[in-house]
Amino acid sequence: MMLVNGREGLSVPVADRGFQYGDGCFTTLEVRDGAPLFLARHQARLSRDCARLQIPYDCADQVVSEARSLAEAGRDGVLKIIVTRGAGGRGYRCPDVPQASRILGFYPRPVYPSEWAASGVVVRVCRMRLGNNPALAGIKHMNRLEQVLARSEWSDAEIAEGLLLDAQGWVTEGVMSNVFMVRDGRLETPRLNRCGVAGVMRELVAELAGRMGIAVREGRCRLSRLREADEVFVTNSLIGIWPVRRLDDRAWPVGSLTRRLAEAVEQAKAGAVQEFLAAQP
Amino acid sequence: MMLVNGREGLSVPVADRGFQYGDGCFTTLEVRDGAPLFLARHQARLSRDCARLQIPYDCADQVVSEARSLAEAGRDGVLKIIVTRGAGGRGYRCPDVPQASRILGFYPRPVYPSEWAASGVVVRVCRMRLGNNPALAGIKHMNRLEQVLARSEWSDAEIAEGLLLDAQGWVTEGVMSNVFMVRDGRLETPRLNRCGVAGVMRELVAELAGRMGIAVREGRCRLSRLREADEVFVTNSLIGIWPVRRLDDRAWPVGSLTRRLAEAVEQAKAGAVQEFLAAQP
Repeated sequence: MMLVNGREGLSVPVADRGFQYGDGCFTTLEVRDGAPLFLARHQARLSRDCARLQIPYDCADQVVSEARSLAEAGRDGVLKIIVTRGAGGRGYRCPDVPQASRILGFYPRPVYPSEWAASGVVVRVCRMRLGNNPALAGIKHMNRLEQVLARSEWSDAEIAEGLLLDAQGWVTEGVMSNVFMVRDGRLETPRLNRCGVAGVMRELVAELAGRMGIAVREGRCRLSRLREADEVFVTNSLIGIWPVRRLDDRAWPVGSLTRRLAEAVEQAKAGAVQEFLAAQP
Repeated sequence: MMLVNGREGLSVPVADRGFQYGDGCFTTLEVRDGAPLFLARHQARLSRDCARLQIPYDCADQVVSEARSLAEAGRDGVLKIIVTRGAGGRGYRCPDVPQASRILGFYPRPVYPSEWAASGVVVRVCRMRLGNNPALAGIKHMNRLEQVLARSEWSDAEIAEGLLLDAQGWVTEGVMSNVFMVRDGRLETPRLNRCGVAGVMRELVAELAGRMGIAVREGRCRLSRLREADEVFVTNSLIGIWPVRRLDDRAWPVGSLTRRLAEAVEQAKAGAVQEFLAAQP
């Protein structure tokens, strides 16, 4: 089911700048038992990303109520929320008073092998390098050709994710996830000030780690440093945490810190569902 | 008027990857007296860009016949042709057998002050820097947030175009145009192997220059070198050639080589119209 500016529909105007230029941003969240998990966080990220793109995000209230209604109807699955700059403007120039469009779609949960969360996943290093642009870094915008082409590099169903380096060879993220490593009991994740998508689950994991007394550092990291890490895992809102058990030829057992954090994420999800159900009339 | 996969319509499916990820490419051409100017060149660029993006461009014949029919109906204006990877695929992953979508739209000609072509335009240097990604460089793909944000840097109607440098400070192109400079009777234009859009008019201008015995060199160029050029001009399929008469505080008179090339472009356009009309039954 899909809502386009509040109406059921499956299409958008060709004139929408989201289609013409990828002029918008999006977020993807998990729905469990009718609860849109961490909706407030996803809402905050949409708001932040729209502000970075100078899109007036004045449909926030509608997004929340429509997200809740789609989640209630769908019960379990995935909710994708897109906000674009709407239609208009000649060429690249934005309209003087843009009217944002919102597109919310409910989808079935992607099916991943159940052992991936428990026993870890195989990751490869992509040939595609991310271009650096601080003006777009961190934003989950709709310009995602780099991810599309990176994901097209492999078809082996055993490989769960691809690791992306930037143009200078710095480890940045997975194609659809953020990446963390554990080193001497501390957590490290790439700084995303030149490229990459700052995921909602990345933020949550860092917060949970903080509450558990685990230091978290953002920084630059070479592939060689990642390979020397004690543990590596990837995160996104749908998968939570996947331990990385192999990166090309480097293998890891599932680490204890990764396991503790994965449990913390699952508890946070369960807590969010409980909180949601308790707030229902 | 608009044709979406051959049918009149004004919308595309939300599921189209052009909307979801900017997963496609486009070209924009001028229509005069019902003639779609340099359609074969635009067709070749779509084909080349689709190949780079691994989009099977097997609707080339339909694109040509639909472009001709829209041009005939519209007579004078602008034709934009978009080719996307179509719908489908879970997340970034492409469908195993993608079915490209084509969207052709006819628009009125943009209205620019008539003196811009004759007496030159004012250009500013954008703060936005283009990210470098050789995998996408040269392609007129649908990931155009950099251009959207760059164009939003100014609203002064006197300023016709913004000049874009890449992340390393190399002059690359205009927001909606390519840039050329004249130095000692020779033509130079930035190499577009790390970012930028290789325009159809850029290609035509280089060819016309070659036929006129003017050497053309692609290379790297700093802003300081551009400012020292004898003449500077920008090109695209709609404007042809605009001499640059001012870049921030640097001023130029309209140069003789720029004028000769602009005339050659106009002749080529007139020739394309004649050729088209002669081929009509």
